[in-house]
Amino acid sequence: MVLCRVPRWSVGLWASPGWWRTTCTLRALVRPKRGPGCPGGASGPLACSMFSKVSSCTPEVMLTQERYPVQRLPFSVVSEEDLAAFERLVPGRVVTDPEELEVSNVDWLRTARGCSKVLLRPRTSEEVSRILRYCHERNLAVNPQGGNTGLVGGSVPVFDEIILSTALMNQVTSFNSVSGILTCQAGCVLEGLSRYVQERDFVMPLDLGAKGSCHIGGNVATNAGGLRFLRYGSLHGTVLGLEVVLADGTVLDCLTSLRKDNTGYDLKQLFIGSEGTLGVITAVSILCPPRPKAVNVAFLGCPGFAEVLQTFSTCRGMLGEILSAFEFMDAECMQLVQQHLHLASPVQESAFYLLVETSGSSTGHDAEKLGCFLEQVLGSGLVTDGTVATDESKAQALWALRERITEALSRDGYVYKYDVSLPVERLYDLVTDLRARLGSQARRVVGYGHLGDGNLHLNVTVDAFSAALLDTLEPYVYAWTAGQRGSVSAEHGLGFRKRDALRYSKPPPAVQLMQQLKALLDPKGILNPYKLLPTQA
Amino acid sequence: MVLCRVPRWSVGLWASPGWWRTTCTLRALVRPKRGPGCPGGASGPLACSMFSKVSSCTPEVMLTQERYPVQRLPFSVVSEEDLAAFERLVPGRVVTDPEELEVSNVDWLRTARGCSKVLLRPRTSEEVSRILRYCHERNLAVNPQGGNTGLVGGSVPVFDEIILSTALMNQVTSFNSVSGILTCQAGCVLEGLSRYVQERDFVMPLDLGAKGSCHIGGNVATNAGGLRFLRYGSLHGTVLGLEVVLADGTVLDCLTSLRKDNTGYDLKQLFIGSEGTLGVITAVSILCPPRPKAVNVAFLGCPGFAEVLQTFSTCRGMLGEILSAFEFMDAECMQLVQQHLHLASPVQESAFYLLVETSGSSTGHDAEKLGCFLEQVLGSGLVTDGTVATDESKAQALWALRERITEALSRDGYVYKYDVSLPVERLYDLVTDLRARLGSQARRVVGYGHLGDGNLHLNVTVDAFSAALLDTLEPYVYAWTAGQRGSVSAEHGLGFRKRDALRYSKPPPAVQLMQQLKALLDPKGILNPYKLLPTQA
Repeated sequence: MVLCRVPRWSVGLWASPGWWRTTCTLRALVRPKRGPGCPGGASGPLACSMFSKVSSCTPEVMLTQERYPVQRLPFSVVSEEDLAAFERLVPGRVVTDPEELEVSNVDWLRTARGCSKVLLRPRTSEEVSRILRYCHERNLAVNPQGGNTGLVGGSVPVFDEIILSTALMNQVTSFNSVSGILTCQAGCVLEGLSRYVQERDFVMPLDLGAKGSCHIGGNVATNAGGLRFLRYGSLHGTVLGLEVVLADGTVLDCLTSLRKDNTGYDLKQLFIGSEGTLGVITAVSILCPPRPKAVNVAFLGCPGFAEVLQTFSTCRGMLGEILSAFEFMDAECMQLVQQHLHLASPVQESAFYLLVETSGSSTGHDAEKLGCFLEQVLGSGLVTDGTVATDESKAQALWALRERITEALSRDGYVYKYDVSLPVERLYDLVTDLRARLGSQARRVVGYGHLGDGNLHLNVTVDAFSAALLDTLEPYVYAWTAGQRGSVSAEHGLGFRKRDALRYSKPPPAVQLMQQLKALLDPKGILNPYKLLPTQA
Repeated sequence: MVLCRVPRWSVGLWASPGWWRTTCTLRALVRPKRGPGCPGGASGPLACSMFSKVSSCTPEVMLTQERYPVQRLPFSVVSEEDLAAFERLVPGRVVTDPEELEVSNVDWLRTARGCSKVLLRPRTSEEVSRILRYCHERNLAVNPQGGNTGLVGGSVPVFDEIILSTALMNQVTSFNSVSGILTCQAGCVLEGLSRYVQERDFVMPLDLGAKGSCHIGGNVATNAGGLRFLRYGSLHGTVLGLEVVLADGTVLDCLTSLRKDNTGYDLKQLFIGSEGTLGVITAVSILCPPRPKAVNVAFLGCPGFAEVLQTFSTCRGMLGEILSAFEFMDAECMQLVQQHLHLASPVQESAFYLLVETSGSSTGHDAEKLGCFLEQVLGSGLVTDGTVATDESKAQALWALRERITEALSRDGYVYKYDVSLPVERLYDLVTDLRARLGSQARRVVGYGHLGDGNLHLNVTVDAFSAALLDTLEPYVYAWTAGQRGSVSAEHGLGFRKRDALRYSKPPPAVQLMQQLKALLDPKGILNPYKLLPTQA
């Protein structure tokens, strides 16, 4: 094994846009090509079927209303008069073409599909305000949509909700090069913002595989976690201000660009992670950390999960402030990327693999720290094999092994996806447990994720969707997680698909308070209905 | 000038309790000695005067109800039956002795004084729940109180509110030595927690001058900022879970110990910074960063504010991830600590002084980074003189110059205190502007604070309190701040004294939403009344 170290300047996470293949691959997934399909929606309620003649769909994505037991709420149905009114509010930016709508009606996992007949593209918060005021008065449901990269069916309509796209709200308002505070509209694409602040020697405090498509407003609305969470923490800490349009059209201006502000309740926090159900985020102010001068990536093999945990503790102690990622994947994950994507493992076969990234301000210091750490973990047997990126393509290849697992999974069959937070010591027990429980019912049960954040991505692959297996998995996975006081959704949110799992992570008084907040902020329930909050009995 | 570097391990911020003189001094201020005083409260409303015979006070602290135009709201008055009921709820922990109550009725700045007749000392959240359920039913107002170290009159009663002290809720529940997640009761003193986690090689993510007295529950309730904010960020990011008792006694258990949890609205955020007006925080789960192995302190002289800003930018670039504090003070501040505390300046006379602290994982690396930075700023003339701590006592002495300004100010006369957030470029303009505006009306107009956070502490000293000068200062300072989209309270909160300044930092729809949230969570308004929200017209 050769240990070499190079700075990852302009590599991978900090790369210029389009450079990194993994990102490109994911972007391709985000907007899957769709050919003209069969007419759909005929079996839906009146609201969905009224335009069914002009609707088109990709056959394999069932309408959400058909796949799941969900009842349309008594919202109004969009009329010709409504369309005319929208045309007056956002002239030339009212989309009713079924082909164009299709992309926004289906989520990127291709497991949820709405049948909205209209998508609006406002450019300003004032336009959003006028739209919502109108919809509120008319009792029309609205599905706010950013880059439509969500994983829980939260970003697409369930029935015929009006899609309110932030795509044209894509202007940077200001950037302070002393404080690193960026203010921009909600529809700015994360990758574009990354590039913008990197040119000014800062980085965005969050990074995601979907950065080529996702909008910063959507990131905030879903409290996105991602790859820099370990280092820069939650959006609850890095988002400094928000402008939000409430359900009735009121513009709530909490768009301060200040690190500290203790004047009254921190209202913006309510909207971070509210998944568009309490208001539509129209602008964001966010604190960007200085751009690291040196980035290193190491890929390591570990003989067992106990050693993974010990390596993490050692790593935190020895790499300290320069540690920026500590990701893990199990042997099954490695087999998946080898089998489906033909990626080669850079280290000998192991039970677990770790990806450790450092980001710091000194190439020499960081290399020295990383070297000492590697010497320690290799010497003590915690790690049995390892490699460090020697050039840009190797750094890229190391990250790809971890980042392309999602893609490899999707090629393995139908995937049941779970994203849980657990106490780190118990993190992998759920995988082992489930593997034993499912036996030959599953093709694979794999675990990977952000170990440093206690965040496990648990995936089960099978030949094809089976309701029986779903019953075996749920609520078992949720109950197991609840037994450890874990979270049934660490970073993906609840959206449409997981909303009824909420009670596994939150007690009844908390759920009740959430419902009260929803009723206070959106009394008619028009904002992103059927999402986040559990089905009312 | 001699540049030497030593690790600040076990020095200053990371010191064992009681070691650091500054902390001790502040602690002494927190609990000023009070002799038996005159009877007071006779001129208050019935609720306050009913026990006036047994009440005692220190003459110079006027009753809040007498100093300010405030009307008692129609809460019930504590009766003998109530006292008997409390005795059943928290046996032996119902304080009615006037001497004992005095300490909790007066704030530590000695500018606000309530006339509560009873203080309760629950030990558990269940006891808090029973107390609040009782008070809610009886319409009795409650003033939650931690260490009573607040600076805006938020931690003491305005009239006769029942004081609910968290002092006996002081147990650590758990600490995870892999993740660094601490869970404890709300009444744990910050310094005790710091010691506890330091023994386990972690540090608390916040540090304050008042750490010897302040409670973690109070820190969270007021969203305390302090000295480590620049490095570890806001409590909105580091607090992972809260247990809160609502006004009606409902226990809201959001006490998860997870870094990531996207299941529904992040309810705990509502209570961070709500100053006890929405619920009583009874337990906290918080993420502690690993303890730095090396700490260095530099004290520098700068010729002008433009140079201060450029030094900050240079510092962020060159010290990067090890920068843990960037504090500034003006020449008047230095004169104050020299005159009143007989501290000596370690550098030649300058227009501005900076305190730069680094905290990192490598003594050698950190010293090298700091050395390069100092070479750069001295060489370029941004900094004209500087010194670095050569031993523990020097590190202590450097921090004392910055931390003891508050104490020096209080010896200079009556102090009008402001704590504002501003864009860093305009931070000092407010001081210059006000100095010109006040002319000889003020003894001194001084500025210092957490430059790295855009947080200015603006203080005006005069011989004695003058209502006319107050009118010159307010709303001028607030309007000036609002003109820059700043915050009229960066970290101190609004409490009683600043609640009517809220509108300078938040627009009417935001204030209205805050009032709606208060009405939702505390419909009778019994929790910390007269605080945070503006006086209702």
